[in-house]
Amino acid sequence: MRTIQLVLAYDGTEFRGWAKQRDPRVRTIEGELLSVLSSVLGKGVRLSVAGRTDAGVHARRQVASFTTSSAVVPERVQAAINGKLGPEIVVTQASYASQAFDARFSATAREYRYRIDTSPYPDPFSARFVWHRPGDLSAIRMRTAARALIGEHDFASFCRHPGQDRSTVRRLDRVTVVGRGGRVELSFRANAFLHQMVRSLVGTLVAVGEGKLEPEDMKRVMAARDRAAARQLAPPHGLTLERVIYGRHVR
Amino acid sequence: MRTIQLVLAYDGTEFRGWAKQRDPRVRTIEGELLSVLSSVLGKGVRLSVAGRTDAGVHARRQVASFTTSSAVVPERVQAAINGKLGPEIVVTQASYASQAFDARFSATAREYRYRIDTSPYPDPFSARFVWHRPGDLSAIRMRTAARALIGEHDFASFCRHPGQDRSTVRRLDRVTVVGRGGRVELSFRANAFLHQMVRSLVGTLVAVGEGKLEPEDMKRVMAARDRAAARQLAPPHGLTLERVIYGRHVR
Repeated sequence: MRTIQLVLAYDGTEFRGWAKQRDPRVRTIEGELLSVLSSVLGKGVRLSVAGRTDAGVHARRQVASFTTSSAVVPERVQAAINGKLGPEIVVTQASYASQAFDARFSATAREYRYRIDTSPYPDPFSARFVWHRPGDLSAIRMRTAARALIGEHDFASFCRHPGQDRSTVRRLDRVTVVGRGGRVELSFRANAFLHQMVRSLVGTLVAVGEGKLEPEDMKRVMAARDRAAARQLAPPHGLTLERVIYGRHVR
Repeated sequence: MRTIQLVLAYDGTEFRGWAKQRDPRVRTIEGELLSVLSSVLGKGVRLSVAGRTDAGVHARRQVASFTTSSAVVPERVQAAINGKLGPEIVVTQASYASQAFDARFSATAREYRYRIDTSPYPDPFSARFVWHRPGDLSAIRMRTAARALIGEHDFASFCRHPGQDRSTVRRLDRVTVVGRGGRVELSFRANAFLHQMVRSLVGTLVAVGEGKLEPEDMKRVMAARDRAAARQLAPPHGLTLERVIYGRHVR
């Protein structure tokens, strides 16, 4: 058995997220990939992935891996996927990895970016990847609020459907908020993220940027450990999984 | 009667070009705009436009104008269009113009940009607006070839279906070719362009960049005044009308 890893970029607009669904008419990233992989490698391939992106969320350097007994080389897998699924889903790198490598469990951190356009009118050229939310937004207030998020915390307030017995503690290593020329961009790096965590954090930070919450409120929202304490969920299309970190390496 | 001018941005991917067609099922930029305008201003509006973009071609600052006896203010026209057609088609400015203003006949120059991605794999984030043509392309050779195009010439070799008695002479004021980081971008400014002229020029310049033609061949291709002398037509989706010049003003 050999392990192959894929680095993937995709425009998530037309997909119902990463995870394959039972109904074959529902287009998902994993479902599309598996259909190509089964035609190249035979049935039974199982994909491991670093970030299970939601419907409408994009990825610039997503990492997936699988093991196979097939002798088909990574370059051929890449060519098959790009020929069939590009340019919506593109494999930018394909290579053998050490047998112990697993895209999900070997990952030590993930980095997401959220893009907001605050200008009066949307831009047709970036509309698929940016949330158009016209009107002033204070990046300074948002940055101050974001500081309270850094570190290891229970992020249950920012999680949809936390499992009964699953931990909602995560370690957020870095948050940046940059405002410039009608754009506000937020970037988040954590060991792992809860379901809809970034969109929920962005929604609450936007409430701070609008003056509806104070930067100091962030601690209270987090301490509540209750989804109702957080604000609106930012829409999925502004969100992109930018990269995955493996120890000291970015794949 | 008052004259209103609109500055428009659009993603042309899903449209069969600017010009309204008889079949109402064929989506065109003009057709979509007229349907909104007739609901706001009543029937009978006629649009003048600076650049009649082809199917799949985009615009960043297209200019259109019309006259109306209605008292409806430009801001309301803008809001109606953006509410109905955004973010695919967006009016970024709407204002009264002098009564003699005509978006087409008052324009003194148009500027188009053509974007090529030469990297091995397409980029899902720019694929709608960039021609993915993997493999080296010499921007220096293309720039040398482009110099022969500057000035007033008969561009019949670069025109689709020139009319029997219509002049194919145009004045090309400026061509730039910039190569950087897996991208080659060409920009063209002329008093006016023939049908498919930019895409035909780009196709021939790419042949020079690939080494299939020499930069010196450009003069010969132009002198032939025959479409057969030019090379492949570059695909429409790499092309964007960037701006329109009115005397000393850019609208």
